[in-house]
Amino acid sequence: MSAFELFILGSNSAVPAHGRNPSAQILKHKSCSILIDCGEGTQFQMNRYHIKRANLDYILISHMHGDHYFGLVGLLNSMRLNGRTRELQIYGPPELDPIIRLQTHYDEGDWSFQINFHALEFGKFQVIFESADLIVSSLPLKHKLPCNGFLFKEKPKLRTIIPEALEKFAVPNSEIFKIKQGSDFINSKGETILNQVLSKEAKASFSYAYCSDTIYDEDLLAYIAGVDLLYHEATFLKEDEEKAALRYHSTTWQAASIAKQAEVGHLLIGHFSAKYKDLSSYLIEAQEIFSDTSLALEGNAYAIPYLVGQ
Amino acid sequence: MSAFELFILGSNSAVPAHGRNPSAQILKHKSCSILIDCGEGTQFQMNRYHIKRANLDYILISHMHGDHYFGLVGLLNSMRLNGRTRELQIYGPPELDPIIRLQTHYDEGDWSFQINFHALEFGKFQVIFESADLIVSSLPLKHKLPCNGFLFKEKPKLRTIIPEALEKFAVPNSEIFKIKQGSDFINSKGETILNQVLSKEAKASFSYAYCSDTIYDEDLLAYIAGVDLLYHEATFLKEDEEKAALRYHSTTWQAASIAKQAEVGHLLIGHFSAKYKDLSSYLIEAQEIFSDTSLALEGNAYAIPYLVGQ
Repeated sequence: MSAFELFILGSNSAVPAHGRNPSAQILKHKSCSILIDCGEGTQFQMNRYHIKRANLDYILISHMHGDHYFGLVGLLNSMRLNGRTRELQIYGPPELDPIIRLQTHYDEGDWSFQINFHALEFGKFQVIFESADLIVSSLPLKHKLPCNGFLFKEKPKLRTIIPEALEKFAVPNSEIFKIKQGSDFINSKGETILNQVLSKEAKASFSYAYCSDTIYDEDLLAYIAGVDLLYHEATFLKEDEEKAALRYHSTTWQAASIAKQAEVGHLLIGHFSAKYKDLSSYLIEAQEIFSDTSLALEGNAYAIPYLVGQ
Repeated sequence: MSAFELFILGSNSAVPAHGRNPSAQILKHKSCSILIDCGEGTQFQMNRYHIKRANLDYILISHMHGDHYFGLVGLLNSMRLNGRTRELQIYGPPELDPIIRLQTHYDEGDWSFQINFHALEFGKFQVIFESADLIVSSLPLKHKLPCNGFLFKEKPKLRTIIPEALEKFAVPNSEIFKIKQGSDFINSKGETILNQVLSKEAKASFSYAYCSDTIYDEDLLAYIAGVDLLYHEATFLKEDEEKAALRYHSTTWQAASIAKQAEVGHLLIGHFSAKYKDLSSYLIEAQEIFSDTSLALEGNAYAIPYLVGQ
């Protein structure tokens, strides 16, 4: 498994159809596990793909359309029945809080774990939390209801030390962390050994952006430019551009155009309309504009960065 | 298809497991369609078994444990997205009303159909509504939370006329309905023709009782005596009798004992614990006490009355 990986649990829009499930994704970064949106049946999909509820650290909900949150209370309830004790962080629209409260109240006994609900603002690009290795920000999406996308960026990594150089210049262990951070080393004789002699460039920091649901919006480009993996909704095929605009959704061409302009590493499209059973046209159309595109298919994992042929 | 039939959409308890879905059943009587409980994913199960959401007339919710109602708002939302206009009747605990309201409020535009919510009382055997051909009553179940079971009884049927006798005694068409209701016929000469000459016994009226969730409770016997089909929860195997009592649930033996004492036609057991992957012990144990028992398995239909070997 890759250290930074996206797993798709569902990518259908609105009404469940053709055996496809509504929006839900698991973003894993080392030991940190984040659920992004939680349509109905998300806990069943987690069972199906052997993803442990107990391992979830964060849940992020983009907006108040049911296909993005109707599975949340069921998932929380199962965590309780499984005896979870670890605190859980939930970030979502303020309207979600009373819905959770109302449905976690009518149950036997106290809840075994603390739910920390963090109400998100809308219309702003801002950092919403930091985990050990990730910085998570909200993306201002334009949809019928207030809606946030999410940007996940690895924190800058430490430089890689060169063991032979450390030995050669007799660098004590106590100095290693500073050297990883980029400091030069001054030895007991007062001589300065430059950092680039002792360490190599830090590995690149990767990023993932989640943009569902949104109308075609070039204002997004500034926030998602150069991300390694972009999930952008493509509810409709290109022929339905008018319908997409009317419903504040995007088409295949529009999603791919955003990916192309933002020069992302790879594009995943999803939030497929129930109108289409066969999804092959989605892929063909998106690849007409941006060839590095895949369908966000349930049960599939996508490493970040995603290399075609993985 | 039988005129009176039960279809199982889910019969697992609490935490979803082993690919089994939480409680939900469709009771069909002629053209009337009633959903009994609505655990998470009920709408997916309806899709899977080609049961049309649009045909539902009534939804009944027994109690406020999530495995019996977490699928409700998603189902309602899909009905809206499908453009339903026909009113829908929902009967359930009063606490359900604000949960529905809160989640049907945050959505674009008005709802296309009227939801008539009827708050049920608990602890009483009483008629809660009548459809064209059924009388539906609540059953006072004993569970951790206030809980109703439901009894569905066909209304008494009309007597069957004997066409040859009607012809022989020159009975005018205007009299036929009265004869079906049991009246004698007085001809133009003032002679009385007894009803039993003109008609045969009405067909039997059948009944179905739904008892989930409940502790073993002989007080139920008075209400469900002689029903043609009984669904009684059997969350646990007989070895877990203490655990069952502690959690206000029943065992296989207890469910079967209720069926035996109530002299029901056939017993369905369900609400299986996630603890057991293989359900065969449930059936074996229940049949030790009451042989006319089946497992309430997802995707199975049970005619009422149920004849083994159907």
